[in-house]
Amino acid sequence: MLEETIAAIRPADARALAEARSHQDRLTKPPGALGVLEEVAVRLAGAARTSPPPMPEPAALAIFAADHGVHAQGVSPWPQEVTQQMVANFLAGGAVANAFAAQVGASVTVVDVGVAADLPPASGLMIKKVGYGTADLSLGPAMTEAQAVQALEAGISVARTLIADGARCLITGDMGIANTTASAALIAAFTGTDAAAVTGRGTGVDDSTHTLKIAVVRRALDANAAASTPLSTLAALGGFEHAAIAGFILGGAAARVPVILDGVIAGAAALAAHALSPSVADHCVAGHRSAEPGHAVALAHLGLRPLVDLELRLGEGTGGLLAHPLVCAAVRVMHDVATFDAAGVTEKPS
Amino acid sequence: MLEETIAAIRPADARALAEARSHQDRLTKPPGALGVLEEVAVRLAGAARTSPPPMPEPAALAIFAADHGVHAQGVSPWPQEVTQQMVANFLAGGAVANAFAAQVGASVTVVDVGVAADLPPASGLMIKKVGYGTADLSLGPAMTEAQAVQALEAGISVARTLIADGARCLITGDMGIANTTASAALIAAFTGTDAAAVTGRGTGVDDSTHTLKIAVVRRALDANAAASTPLSTLAALGGFEHAAIAGFILGGAAARVPVILDGVIAGAAALAAHALSPSVADHCVAGHRSAEPGHAVALAHLGLRPLVDLELRLGEGTGGLLAHPLVCAAVRVMHDVATFDAAGVTEKPS
Repeated sequence: MLEETIAAIRPADARALAEARSHQDRLTKPPGALGVLEEVAVRLAGAARTSPPPMPEPAALAIFAADHGVHAQGVSPWPQEVTQQMVANFLAGGAVANAFAAQVGASVTVVDVGVAADLPPASGLMIKKVGYGTADLSLGPAMTEAQAVQALEAGISVARTLIADGARCLITGDMGIANTTASAALIAAFTGTDAAAVTGRGTGVDDSTHTLKIAVVRRALDANAAASTPLSTLAALGGFEHAAIAGFILGGAAARVPVILDGVIAGAAALAAHALSPSVADHCVAGHRSAEPGHAVALAHLGLRPLVDLELRLGEGTGGLLAHPLVCAAVRVMHDVATFDAAGVTEKPS
Repeated sequence: MLEETIAAIRPADARALAEARSHQDRLTKPPGALGVLEEVAVRLAGAARTSPPPMPEPAALAIFAADHGVHAQGVSPWPQEVTQQMVANFLAGGAVANAFAAQVGASVTVVDVGVAADLPPASGLMIKKVGYGTADLSLGPAMTEAQAVQALEAGISVARTLIADGARCLITGDMGIANTTASAALIAAFTGTDAAAVTGRGTGVDDSTHTLKIAVVRRALDANAAASTPLSTLAALGGFEHAAIAGFILGGAAARVPVILDGVIAGAAALAAHALSPSVADHCVAGHRSAEPGHAVALAHLGLRPLVDLELRLGEGTGGLLAHPLVCAAVRVMHDVATFDAAGVTEKPS
């Protein structure tokens, strides 16, 4: 499933890109007046291979939840149980992601890819468990390559299911106490950046924990220095949710359905997806810029510019959800707005 | 009507602000994890004098259209007729503002407060004409104080009508070829900033026109140096749409309905409203940061931080419309999200 998905991913279509740019310039607005949103619409046209691109509605958020062996190193002030407690909160509709999804009209699916407990079946919960949390990446590989493939394929399968159910935009979400540590390690490895430059305070750690966290990321990179392929790097340093999100991104791209990336966890996962299939970046929109320093490094490597920059540091898909109306607005312009000719508006003399 | 409106505007309620902050900290998310959006929700609670504040839906966009005598100075490459052509485009649903409004579910009302032509009656068009364009502000006052009051009261009246029709959020919009020149003059005067620092390229002028535009703003400030009160400054340097938008903001604030400001024209108008009634800023949300340099100066003076920063330079209310889902999401969190206690989620040990 992984190989077939990667084979189906195509880079942006040059003709659709050119058509979309030309269409933008005929619309009743000064050229370039929509700033970054014009480029978003053009990029989605390239990814969809048609201009205007289809409206990216309805959207589906998938929150991939998993636990992390590295939690034992004391990198987070939150107990590991919070992962499963927050899964219950998502399923009950009580989390911020639920409120944001309701606001923008997105569906919410929670996927257990590796929570360290058996979760009771529930509506809105997909069980795709690869393990009961990863191994401690600071001591060696977080997972085997076979587990990484299993998690990747879980993500592909979730993307396929949501698209078959009608989704025309996928939004990445995550839940996993300690997952900013794994994200920092992935970003450091895939971009060749020093651990200190990509390791942040997550959902709130003090100075001494931050120093510890950087040291743990360094140890993880040392302990896994043998990992040299995209898959082995992902397996060595990632969480199950990182691997699943990478698969989710690949699955969207293969189906030409755009994927809005949330924050630093999605950015780290997208680096893995990009390493497996570089064209995948053409199908991604960076939803927001997280307060985590590694996120900007990841986005720069992917060549993506975030749409929302409001100092969010929550995860769950919240930043991706907030970006969805902006992405829709960008595409709607190409469908609804009149051209100078059609509207009888005088063009600016050039 | 103006005096009574100003008298009704109250500053943020300290108790509602404190309640909203305390409520934010009990929700199932790390404290502060929603960044700027937490402060938006808290500010709206203060303005509404209750926590949580009412949902700012439905939203109503009012696009105030007018022409400008200063157009004769060659400050814009666009012919003046484009103002009325774009009004027709708004009414036909073909402009970017219409597409964005459709995306976010906002109504669109166009208000003629001073277009230099008689417009045919149309559904969605309110005629509140104060004149056929302003006088040239580079030669003397753009309008009389009586005209400024008339335009302010037109804006108040539009706010009252839209709120009576059910709007729970007002969004400012504007259309007026050459109105970034008047905006720069207003911002320079109300903030005491040099013309060169606040005069930008509007919807696209070349270097020589930009230099001319700065010189025109300087001449306008010199020619109107006698203006010393808020009202006389607005009359001397503003456009009819600036005065009407200032009234619209005052009208929203008086009714405790939040106002999302669009770009630099709204920022300039908000400075006038703020000079007339300083508490008005508590009721405003800065929708976006325009590419115009004067906008950041205006927002800093008002103490507002923009939500969207995507290099838009279109006007029409487009930046305000894009911010609306973000503002709704911020408030919805306070209504929908579970507390740690209620959700059974363990709090971070402090």
